[in-house]
Amino acid sequence: MDPVIPPIDGQVSPRYAGFTTFARLPRITDVPRHDVAVVGVPFDSGVTFRPGARFGPSAIREASRLLRPYNPALDVMPFHECQVVDAGDINCNPFNITTALQEIEAGVSELIVDGKPVVLLGGDHTIALASLRAINKVHGPVALVHFDAHLDTWGPYFNTPVTHGTPFRVAIEEGLLLKEHSVHVGIRGSLYAASDLTDDEELGFTIVHAREFHTTPFLDIIERINRRVGDAPLYISIDIDVLDPAHAPGTGTPEAGGLTSRELLELLRALSTRKLVGADVVEVAPAYDHASITAVAAAHCAYDLVSIMSRQRTQ
Amino acid sequence: MDPVIPPIDGQVSPRYAGFTTFARLPRITDVPRHDVAVVGVPFDSGVTFRPGARFGPSAIREASRLLRPYNPALDVMPFHECQVVDAGDINCNPFNITTALQEIEAGVSELIVDGKPVVLLGGDHTIALASLRAINKVHGPVALVHFDAHLDTWGPYFNTPVTHGTPFRVAIEEGLLLKEHSVHVGIRGSLYAASDLTDDEELGFTIVHAREFHTTPFLDIIERINRRVGDAPLYISIDIDVLDPAHAPGTGTPEAGGLTSRELLELLRALSTRKLVGADVVEVAPAYDHASITAVAAAHCAYDLVSIMSRQRTQ
Amino acid sequence: MDPVIPPIDGQVSPRYAGFTTFARLPRITDVPRHDVAVVGVPFDSGVTFRPGARFGPSAIREASRLLRPYNPALDVMPFHECQVVDAGDINCNPFNITTALQEIEAGVSELIVDGKPVVLLGGDHTIALASLRAINKVHGPVALVHFDAHLDTWGPYFNTPVTHGTPFRVAIEEGLLLKEHSVHVGIRGSLYAASDLTDDEELGFTIVHAREFHTTPFLDIIERINRRVGDAPLYISIDIDVLDPAHAPGTGTPEAGGLTSRELLELLRALSTRKLVGADVVEVAPAYDHASITAVAAAHCAYDLVSIMSRQRTQ
Amino acid sequence: MDPVIPPIDGQVSPRYAGFTTFARLPRITDVPRHDVAVVGVPFDSGVTFRPGARFGPSAIREASRLLRPYNPALDVMPFHECQVVDAGDINCNPFNITTALQEIEAGVSELIVDGKPVVLLGGDHTIALASLRAINKVHGPVALVHFDAHLDTWGPYFNTPVTHGTPFRVAIEEGLLLKEHSVHVGIRGSLYAASDLTDDEELGFTIVHAREFHTTPFLDIIERINRRVGDAPLYISIDIDVLDPAHAPGTGTPEAGGLTSRELLELLRALSTRKLVGADVVEVAPAYDHASITAVAAAHCAYDLVSIMSRQRTQ
Amino acid sequence: MDPVIPPIDGQVSPRYAGFTTFARLPRITDVPRHDVAVVGVPFDSGVTFRPGARFGPSAIREASRLLRPYNPALDVMPFHECQVVDAGDINCNPFNITTALQEIEAGVSELIVDGKPVVLLGGDHTIALASLRAINKVHGPVALVHFDAHLDTWGPYFNTPVTHGTPFRVAIEEGLLLKEHSVHVGIRGSLYAASDLTDDEELGFTIVHAREFHTTPFLDIIERINRRVGDAPLYISIDIDVLDPAHAPGTGTPEAGGLTSRELLELLRALSTRKLVGADVVEVAPAYDHASITAVAAAHCAYDLVSIMSRQRTQ
Amino acid sequence: MDPVIPPIDGQVSPRYAGFTTFARLPRITDVPRHDVAVVGVPFDSGVTFRPGARFGPSAIREASRLLRPYNPALDVMPFHECQVVDAGDINCNPFNITTALQEIEAGVSELIVDGKPVVLLGGDHTIALASLRAINKVHGPVALVHFDAHLDTWGPYFNTPVTHGTPFRVAIEEGLLLKEHSVHVGIRGSLYAASDLTDDEELGFTIVHAREFHTTPFLDIIERINRRVGDAPLYISIDIDVLDPAHAPGTGTPEAGGLTSRELLELLRALSTRKLVGADVVEVAPAYDHASITAVAAAHCAYDLVSIMSRQRTQ
Repeated sequence: MDPVIPPIDGQVSPRYAGFTTFARLPRITDVPRHDVAVVGVPFDSGVTFRPGARFGPSAIREASRLLRPYNPALDVMPFHECQVVDAGDINCNPFNITTALQEIEAGVSELIVDGKPVVLLGGDHTIALASLRAINKVHGPVALVHFDAHLDTWGPYFNTPVTHGTPFRVAIEEGLLLKEHSVHVGIRGSLYAASDLTDDEELGFTIVHAREFHTTPFLDIIERINRRVGDAPLYISIDIDVLDPAHAPGTGTPEAGGLTSRELLELLRALSTRKLVGADVVEVAPAYDHASITAVAAAHCAYDLVSIMSRQRTQ
Repeated sequence: MDPVIPPIDGQVSPRYAGFTTFARLPRITDVPRHDVAVVGVPFDSGVTFRPGARFGPSAIREASRLLRPYNPALDVMPFHECQVVDAGDINCNPFNITTALQEIEAGVSELIVDGKPVVLLGGDHTIALASLRAINKVHGPVALVHFDAHLDTWGPYFNTPVTHGTPFRVAIEEGLLLKEHSVHVGIRGSLYAASDLTDDEELGFTIVHAREFHTTPFLDIIERINRRVGDAPLYISIDIDVLDPAHAPGTGTPEAGGLTSRELLELLRALSTRKLVGADVVEVAPAYDHASITAVAAAHCAYDLVSIMSRQRTQ
Repeated sequence: MDPVIPPIDGQVSPRYAGFTTFARLPRITDVPRHDVAVVGVPFDSGVTFRPGARFGPSAIREASRLLRPYNPALDVMPFHECQVVDAGDINCNPFNITTALQEIEAGVSELIVDGKPVVLLGGDHTIALASLRAINKVHGPVALVHFDAHLDTWGPYFNTPVTHGTPFRVAIEEGLLLKEHSVHVGIRGSLYAASDLTDDEELGFTIVHAREFHTTPFLDIIERINRRVGDAPLYISIDIDVLDPAHAPGTGTPEAGGLTSRELLELLRALSTRKLVGADVVEVAPAYDHASITAVAAAHCAYDLVSIMSRQRTQ
Repeated sequence: MDPVIPPIDGQVSPRYAGFTTFARLPRITDVPRHDVAVVGVPFDSGVTFRPGARFGPSAIREASRLLRPYNPALDVMPFHECQVVDAGDINCNPFNITTALQEIEAGVSELIVDGKPVVLLGGDHTIALASLRAINKVHGPVALVHFDAHLDTWGPYFNTPVTHGTPFRVAIEEGLLLKEHSVHVGIRGSLYAASDLTDDEELGFTIVHAREFHTTPFLDIIERINRRVGDAPLYISIDIDVLDPAHAPGTGTPEAGGLTSRELLELLRALSTRKLVGADVVEVAPAYDHASITAVAAAHCAYDLVSIMSRQRTQ
Repeated sequence: MDPVIPPIDGQVSPRYAGFTTFARLPRITDVPRHDVAVVGVPFDSGVTFRPGARFGPSAIREASRLLRPYNPALDVMPFHECQVVDAGDINCNPFNITTALQEIEAGVSELIVDGKPVVLLGGDHTIALASLRAINKVHGPVALVHFDAHLDTWGPYFNTPVTHGTPFRVAIEEGLLLKEHSVHVGIRGSLYAASDLTDDEELGFTIVHAREFHTTPFLDIIERINRRVGDAPLYISIDIDVLDPAHAPGTGTPEAGGLTSRELLELLRALSTRKLVGADVVEVAPAYDHASITAVAAAHCAYDLVSIMSRQRTQ
Repeated sequence: MDPVIPPIDGQVSPRYAGFTTFARLPRITDVPRHDVAVVGVPFDSGVTFRPGARFGPSAIREASRLLRPYNPALDVMPFHECQVVDAGDINCNPFNITTALQEIEAGVSELIVDGKPVVLLGGDHTIALASLRAINKVHGPVALVHFDAHLDTWGPYFNTPVTHGTPFRVAIEEGLLLKEHSVHVGIRGSLYAASDLTDDEELGFTIVHAREFHTTPFLDIIERINRRVGDAPLYISIDIDVLDPAHAPGTGTPEAGGLTSRELLELLRALSTRKLVGADVVEVAPAYDHASITAVAAAHCAYDLVSIMSRQRTQ
C-alpha cells in the first residue's frame, strides 16, 4: 500500500507560504488513492438573506494553514494515520439549484466509494441535501446531528422547494435520515410560527436549544446527543451560524445568543465514538468575516471531523 | 377594533427588500392606532468618548430585517397579538442637551398615552432620562433594571449636569425611580473612586457585577433580580456595552469582561412576568460595528422586549 | 394640481434621522401622484463572481441622506420642480431569473406610465434587461449610454441565457436598443477573446475605453458620446464598477484602471441635454464597501440622473 | 539661541516605536521655546452628520510617524531650520460650543505670540472660527484659502449660530477675513438652494469648483488662487473632505467627485511663496478611515504646511 | 518623598484628548522616580505567521485611555498608591533577534532596579525571554503563569533558536523558571506531535487546557493555579491569543475555542495574593483588530497587573 | 512540442471555484515545461514599518481569479500563446535575510533557465535584489524601470545592509544594473536629506517624480522612460505603493500623492516594445487592504507583465 503523503512540513515551507489546500494537504490528483476527502462546494444560490458563502471553501482553506499534524483533544495524527486529501471544489451551476444539487451529489458520490468518509466545505446549507443523497446510496439512512441556529426544515420559499432553509425537511421526506436518531443543536432566534416547532417534531427531530446551555449541565447535553445518535451511521452538519455572531460574524443569517467556539468543538469531540460517515461545514460568508475568525472556527471544526474520521478509518 | 397590521410577509417580499422599519412593521402613520411602539432617538451629544450612536436607530432597524413573527423563547407572536408599530425617529437638537431632552420627553409622551408601552432605540444613554420623565408622568416612579458596564450615576462632566454618564443619578434625584426596586446588572471596569460604589448605593441601587456570573449560578442571579423588581412597574434600560466587546464592538465605551448575548437575552426573558412599562436599548455606534453583530444583538433585545410587552398588553 | 411634497427638511429633522428613503423623499404611497420615480431592485442572482448587490438599494438610500435640494452642477432643484418619489423595492424572486425579470418589468411598467422617467437602484446588471423591456413598450427602441468596466454583451453562462454579463446582447437581439446610438463607456480589463470586441461591434455598439481618458481630451469624449446619442430617447445604465476600485470597492467584479467619480459625474452632466427616459445604477455590493464610499458615489449618480429628468419633465 | 531639537532619529528608534507626537517632534514642554507649533483640537460637537473627528489629532499623529526630515517638493528640512513642536491637544468642552471656542482661541493665542505660525489638527471645522479669532488678534484680517467640498458659510442650524457649517460666514461677519483675498477650492455636491452660492458671493468669496479641474489647466487654477491671495497674510483651512471619498473615506460628510491627494498637495505647495500665518487640517474621522489613508493624507498636508512655515520663519 | 503624579484628570482633559501614554500616566522622564513601570517592546521579528505586533504598544496605549483611577475588582487606586509610569518603548533591532533580545534585556533591567515590578507591552512572545533574563538577575528563578493558546516550548524554527514559539523552552534551559511552580493556562489547538506535550512536561510545566473550563469548576482551576505558584516570586506572561478569536481577533496565530475576556481577567485577579515581580502582555497585532477590542482586552489585563503590583508595592 | 495548457475554463468552473493559482493557471508541476513563470516570494522580514507582505502572494493569487484569457490593451492571449505557469512560492527563511536572499536567488534561477522570463509576486522589496542577482547570471546587467514612492537606494538600517530600502543601491554596487538605462517612476514623499537625491543621481538613476504627472503630458513621460530604457534588456520592479493610498491601501509605507491604477497600467503597456526579461510586483500587505483592491491592482500589473512577456516569447 502506498505510503501516506502528509501535509507540507511547516519546517520546510512556512505556514503562510505555498499553494493553498486544506491544512496544506495534497490535492486528490497528487496521490494514488485517498481514505478521507475534504471537498469544497462553492454554491450559495440557495440563500435567503446575505449571500457570499460561495467564497467559503477558499476562505476556510486559507484559515486552515495553521492546522498542525497532531490533534491533542482527540489524541490523533489525522493526516498521518491514513491518506487525507483535498479534493478541490465541485463545480456547480450558480443559476440552477436542481442542476447544482445533481452536480454536488455526483461529486460527493465519487469521493465516498467504499464508504470513505468526506467533509464538505460549503457553500450554503442547500448542499447538505445533495450530500445526504450521495451518502444514502452508500450507507442508507443515517443519523443526523445538525448544529445550527435554524431548523432548516421549512417549506418552499418563493415557489422553490429546495433552498438553504429546507434541506432536512426534504431529507426526511426522501427517507435519507433516521428519525429516531436525529437532533438539531443550538437552535434559537425567531420563527415564522409555533407550528415550525411542531412540524419539526412531526418530521421526527428533537431539539437542543441554545438557551438550554444555561440551565443544563454540559455533560448532560453531550450524553443526550450521544444517546440519540446511538450506533447508527452518523452525518454531522454544521451551519457555522450555530456559533454566536461574536464567534462567527462571517455568515448569512446571524442570530444573537449562540454557542461559543469552545462549546461547539467540545460537542464535536464528544461524538468521536459515533460512526461518522460524512459531514459538512457550511454558511461561511467571508465578506462579512473579520480577521478570518469565522473561517478559523470552521477550519477547526473540519479538522476535528477529519480527525474522528481518520481514527475510525484506521481502527 | 381595527385588525392588526403585521410586518411585511417574508414570503412576498424577501427580508432584504423593502423600506426599512423595525422588524418590517408598519409605520405609525400607516395604522389607525397602536398598542406598542418602537421609536428611534438618534441623539449622541451626551457621550464622553466615542460618538456615533446617532446612527444607532438606523442600524438596528436594518439588523431587525431578519426578525420573524414567532418568538419561541417567550412563546408569543408579538406582532400579531396587538398592533406594534415603528414610530420613526424623534427629531432632537444635536447641539443642546436640554432642548433635546424636552423633545424626547415630548415624543415619548405622545406614544405612551393610556400607558402603552414603548421601546426606545438610542442614541446614547442620556435619552433614558427623558424617557423616564415621560414614563413618570403616566406611571409614577418605576423599578429600573439597568444593564450596563457602567453605573451611569456619575455627577456633572465638564460642567454639564446631564450626559450619558448621569441619567440614573438625576432620575433618582427627580424621584423617577423606586429605589428599593432598582438594580444595575453587568457592571465592570474601572471607576473614578471607591466612592462611586458607595454613592451609587446611597442613591438606592444594588449591583449585579459582571464578575458574579462566574461564581453565582445563573438562576440565582435571575431570582435575585426578579425579587428586587417585585410587582413594581418596570423600566428596562439596556446599554449595549453590557455585552462583552466581542459581542458588541459597535459601542462607545467598551469594557472587557462583559456578558454574552446569550446571557443578556436569557436575563431579559426571565423578566417576562414583571410589569414592563417601558424600555430602551442604547449606545449602538455603528461606525465601530462589524457585520452588524452589535446591531443584531440590539435588535434581538428589542424584539424580546416587544414580545413581553405585546403579551402583557393582550392579557 | 397637487403641490409637490419635497424631501424632509434637514433643519427640522437632522439628516441622520428618520425613516430611510432615497434623498429623504416621500414614499410613492404618501403622495397622490409622481413625476419621477426612484425604485430599488434588490436582485443579485445573475452575478458570476461576488454576490451581494441585493443589499444595494438599502445602502444607496442610506448614503443618499446627505443629498440636499439644490444641484449646482445642473442648476436645478430636482425635488421641488416636480414630484419625485421613492417607489420602494420591487419584490423579485431570488431563485428564478426569468420570474424575476417579469416582476421587474411589471414593476417598472407601473411607474413609467405616460412616459414618466424612472431611475432603478440595483441589484446586479441583469435588471437592466427588464428595465429596457418596460421602457421599450412606452418609448420604443432607445439609445443606450452604458457606463461599465465590462461589455455585458457576452453569451450564455452555465446554460443560462440571461445573467449580469448578457443584458445588452439580449437587448439588441430583442430590438430594444438603437444600434447607431448606443455606446459603452469606461470599458477595460481582460476579456475571453478578441472576438468579444468584434462581436460587440457587430451588435452595433461603439466603445469608449477607460484608457482613452489618458490620450483624448475630456471634452472630446463628451462630444463623441453626445453625438452618438443624438436626439434619440436615451437610457443610461451605470454599472458602478465603471469607477476604479479606489472609488468603488463595493462591487462584484472590480477591475483596476477605472474612472474617477469626478469623471463619471461630469460625463453624466454632459448628457443633460439629451432626452433621458430611464436609467439604472447597479452592482453596488455593500459587503465590500468601506465607509459607504461606493454607495455615496452611486447616490450622487442617481441624484444627477433625477436632476436631469426633473428638469426635462418640467420644461 | 538654543539649538533646534529635531524629531527622534529613525535610525535609533524605528518609526513605529516610541511615544506618538506629530512627526516624532518634541513636545512643547520638552524644549525651551518654539518657532512653529502643531496643536491638536479634539472637538467634534459642531458636526451635523457623522461625528468622530475628536479622534482626528490622535490618528493624524500616528499617521505622521513616517514623515522624514527632508521635504523634497519644497526643498526644505522643516524640523531642522527652526524649532517645530507638538503642542499637544487643547482641552475643550465637548458639550458647549461657545465655551469650547473660547478655550480653543485661548489655546491658539498662547502658541502664536510674536506671530509664530501654527497648524491646528482638528477636530471639526467649527474650530477654524476660534483659530481665526486668535489669528486676528495678532495679524488682523487675513486672506483665506479654504479647501473643502462645502462652502461652510451656511447660517444657523438647529438654532445654533456656530457649527461646522458656519465658520466662514461668522468669520466674515466678525471682520476676520479679507474678502477680496479669500477663496474656496474644491467645492462640489448638493446645496440647500441657489442662494447658497449668491450669499457666499455677497460675503466676498470666490469659488474654484471641483469640476473646474476637468476643464481648466492645473497651472491656471494655481495662478488664479495665488493672484487672489496676493501679498496678504494667509490662513489655509483644509477640510479633508475636499479630497474624493476614495482618498479620504474617514470623514464626516463625504461628497463624490473630489480632488486627489496629489492635486491637493500640489495646490498647497503652490502657495509656498504666500505669507502663511496659520492653518488647520480638519474633519478627519478615524472611525470611518481605512488603513489610515485619510490620516496619512492629512499628515502630509500638515507636513507641507509646516514646511512652508518653517522656511518662511527662517528667511 | 515626591508626591505621586497620577494620570491626567478626565474632568480636565477629555479621555480622547492629549498625548497618548498608558492610562494617561506620566512619562518616566516626567517624574523624578517610579515604583512600577509599563514599557512597550515593539518587536515582532520572531513571529511565524501573521506579523504586526510591533504596533501593539501603540494600540494598547490608545485603548488604555478609558482606564480610570479606581479598580473595583481589586479595590485599589493603582496610580495613586505609588508612582506608576509609562517608560516608553524599548528601541530594538527589527532585523536581528539576538541583538534585540539584548536591547530588551537591558531596557527591562534599567526599570527593575531594586526589584521594582514591570509590565511589558509586546511585541511578539519572543520578548518574554529577554524579560525573564532581566528578571532573573534581580529575583533569581521565578514561577511562571503563562496564558496562551500555545505552549511556546517548541524547538528551533528555520534554524533559529529563539522565536515566538520557543521562549519558555529556552527559559527553562537557562534556569530562569521554577519548574515546580510554572503552568500554562488556556492551551488548545493542534500541535506538531504528541511529543510536544511530553516534552513540555519533561521541561517541568503543567497545563490547564482551555477545554478543561467546560468540565472543571472555575474556582477549582483558580485554586490549582494558585497552589502551583505557591509563594515563589511570580512572572505572568499573557499571550493575548489565550482569548478566543471572538475576543481577540487582532493577533497572529488565532485558535478557536479560547477563553473569554471575563475568564482571563478573573484568573488574573485570583493571582493578586501571589508575589508578582513582572509580567508581559504580548501578541496584539492591531492590523487584524476590530474597534480595538483586542487592544482593550490587553489594556485591561495590563491594568489589573499594574493594580496588583501597585498594591503589593505599598504594602 | 507539448500543447499549451491554459487556465481553467470559466465556463466549466466558476471563477470563484477551484484551487487558487495565479489566473487559474496550471501549477508548474502539472505541465512538462514552461515558457513564462509567475512565482510567489512570501518574505517580509526586510520591512521597516508595517509588515505583512508575506501574505502578498496568496492575496494576489486570490485577486487574479477574475483575469480572463484575452488582454485587449495589448491584444494578446498571454496564456495561450505560450505556456505560462504558477511556480508556487519560494520557501525562504523568515529570520535571516542573507539566507532568504540566497533561497530566492536559487529559486528564481531555476525558473529562468534559457532566459525564460519570470514575474515575482512579493513579499517586500528586499526580494528584488535576489531576483536581479539571478537575472544577472543569465542576462548580465539590465535596465531597470522602478515604480515606487521611494528611491530604495538608501544605506544600511539598524546595521543591516540589505533591507527593503536598499535593493537598488546594492544592485548598482554589484553591477547588476545599467546605470544609463535605469529610472525611478512615481517618487514622492519625505526623505532623510537632500543628499538622498544626489546620492541616487550619483548611483546613476534618473527620476520621474509623481508630481510631474501634473505638469508633464502623459505621452511625454512615456517617451522619456522608453528612451531611457532603449534596447537594453529590461527588468521592471513595481512597488505597489507607487499607487496612491486610495488605490493601494494594502501596503507598508503609504505616501499620499501617488499614481492612479490607470496611470500605472498605461505606463506598463507603454513598455511593451522593450525587451522584458524579468519583473516583480511587491509590497502588497493584505492585512491593510480593503475588498482586495490593492491585490486586484497588483494582479492586473502582473497580468500586463505576463502579457508582454508571452508576446515577446512567441515572436
